[in-house]
Amino acid sequence: MSENTRTEISSLGEFGLIEHLTKNFETHNASTVLSVGDDAAVIDHFGKQTVITTDLLIEGIHFDLMYTPLKHLGYKSVMVNLSDIYAMNATPTQITVSVAFSNRFSVEALDEFYEGIYVACEKHGVDLIGGDTSSSQKGFIISVTAIGEVAPDKFVKRSTAQKGDLICVSGDVGGAFLGLTLMEREKRIYLENPQIQPDLEGEDYIVGRLLKPEARKDIIEFFAANDIVPTSMMDVSDGVSSEILHLCRQSNLGCNIYEEKLPIHDAARKAAFKFGLDPTVCALSGGEDYELIFTLKQEDYDKITLNEEIAVIGYMTDIEEGCKFQTKGGNTHPITAQGWNAFVK
Amino acid sequence: MSENTRTEISSLGEFGLIEHLTKNFETHNASTVLSVGDDAAVIDHFGKQTVITTDLLIEGIHFDLMYTPLKHLGYKSVMVNLSDIYAMNATPTQITVSVAFSNRFSVEALDEFYEGIYVACEKHGVDLIGGDTSSSQKGFIISVTAIGEVAPDKFVKRSTAQKGDLICVSGDVGGAFLGLTLMEREKRIYLENPQIQPDLEGEDYIVGRLLKPEARKDIIEFFAANDIVPTSMMDVSDGVSSEILHLCRQSNLGCNIYEEKLPIHDAARKAAFKFGLDPTVCALSGGEDYELIFTLKQEDYDKITLNEEIAVIGYMTDIEEGCKFQTKGGNTHPITAQGWNAFVK
Repeated sequence: MSENTRTEISSLGEFGLIEHLTKNFETHNASTVLSVGDDAAVIDHFGKQTVITTDLLIEGIHFDLMYTPLKHLGYKSVMVNLSDIYAMNATPTQITVSVAFSNRFSVEALDEFYEGIYVACEKHGVDLIGGDTSSSQKGFIISVTAIGEVAPDKFVKRSTAQKGDLICVSGDVGGAFLGLTLMEREKRIYLENPQIQPDLEGEDYIVGRLLKPEARKDIIEFFAANDIVPTSMMDVSDGVSSEILHLCRQSNLGCNIYEEKLPIHDAARKAAFKFGLDPTVCALSGGEDYELIFTLKQEDYDKITLNEEIAVIGYMTDIEEGCKFQTKGGNTHPITAQGWNAFVK
Repeated sequence: MSENTRTEISSLGEFGLIEHLTKNFETHNASTVLSVGDDAAVIDHFGKQTVITTDLLIEGIHFDLMYTPLKHLGYKSVMVNLSDIYAMNATPTQITVSVAFSNRFSVEALDEFYEGIYVACEKHGVDLIGGDTSSSQKGFIISVTAIGEVAPDKFVKRSTAQKGDLICVSGDVGGAFLGLTLMEREKRIYLENPQIQPDLEGEDYIVGRLLKPEARKDIIEFFAANDIVPTSMMDVSDGVSSEILHLCRQSNLGCNIYEEKLPIHDAARKAAFKFGLDPTVCALSGGEDYELIFTLKQEDYDKITLNEEIAVIGYMTDIEEGCKFQTKGGNTHPITAQGWNAFVK
């Protein structure tokens, strides 16, 4: 089918459309008992517990189609939900996807979106088992629910960190925020002068962090292989400092975080300097990295030293000590939900 | 708090808002292991299978806030999903609710919406276990996912009806469509002349059918109490004729439906005549009744005769016989997805 073909969604009808969009999706999990095509789907986790999370993504609020390819958007819509399942130390098994769209979208556009969903499902071994399609008066609206499984009572909450536990972050942080800053800058330039081509030279890394985040299945698998059970965990969607405050508040503890320990990718650091931003601010306050932040007992430290994808950034303290950030220069600041910005006046 | 108070949502913040909206919701089900407040919720159906369905409801497409009170909207958003769970012969146990709204909505408005959700949850013994709140550029957007449980392999699909099975409908049909017709008419009159008060005198029944549908928990309980397992089932959301075609297509059968057997409420029949509509057309093509349509083995007929909430409207035939509708006048028409309208030229 040529790139320029435009098939009107109305030509398929609602049920034709659902069949068209889901026809390449096969189910792989034994837990998927009944999939797309009935009033509801049925799953059987065979003695395991079922983990459920849901996210609503709205054009103009959560994404900008001016610089977000629909295939990437489909992929990311799945990833942000799988990330929440992994953050429970659980394994994702199924998703439902509902979309609403105005008549500016063609069947081909939806195909691209579902291609991204397909790739995400294949990569993470997840079955698409249901959903809903609908029209919207304006814009593209996505609702994904992810379902996973975990051995009884082996899920990891946010509220169970202990004093003295190490605070760890997977991968690196701040990159997605810098990708967003770059894309917003290029969009502004383009809108002012449509002849200028976007300058994304050498910025693949941060653009990829924004448009194609990867939920950390590998970290959960590493935990299982090495008999590690984090004492608390969540995913980094709103920014490291905001997530740390959640862990502290829900566990009734304080913390000490060290600037020099924050994992920041070289490409992100360079981009930050180019935009006149402090890389530490980006790492603390920038959201959407979809890394995992978790706490470990100190005796588990040896088990993670060889994993270069895990950085220890601090430790949990008594609640009386507050949530503190130690700069490279030796200063101490309270951590706020807005991160660095808010306390450096 | 007075009716006229307006609290800006921004005054609570995202997490404050979620806490505010969900603070009165307690969990009642043993299957709810972990609820609102973490990356994901955890449920344990203890050897039963888990049933999942999701719906996206969008202002201007699925509802009109001009004549839909927010409390009713919250209630209905839950009901349309529970109806899908019951349609699997399963028991709903949990829901997640995500909402997006523009800044024209106040905390008080959201409170009303969540009050409706609360009443629906209490009535059906369902726990609210998660969700998402977000802003939208325009309008009110609702995504509900309902979760239920069923004994292993006891769920009822659409595709398993047998030739000769009786086709049954719960309650009555067409009322919600007539309620919609009435509200749209009153809205038009009001917009043309805002001084004229809406004339809903004597129309409580059809208005209630539209604004406050009730998922048929009682029918599923009746099945369980009387050892009835329908051979196929779905809920009536798009209209009886559309649903019958689904059952026939997915079961690879035909059917005979009798006009005189269609359960139509007196109030709906009167309203239809008032609006110059054929009550049969409304019953066949009108959607949103959220009744159950199901097929039964003929030998189960005795078990349902005393239940006045169940009407037998026809029976399943061989696929070669097609899907047929027998009028009171003795004529036979093929059933189409649009119901009566499409074949009476």
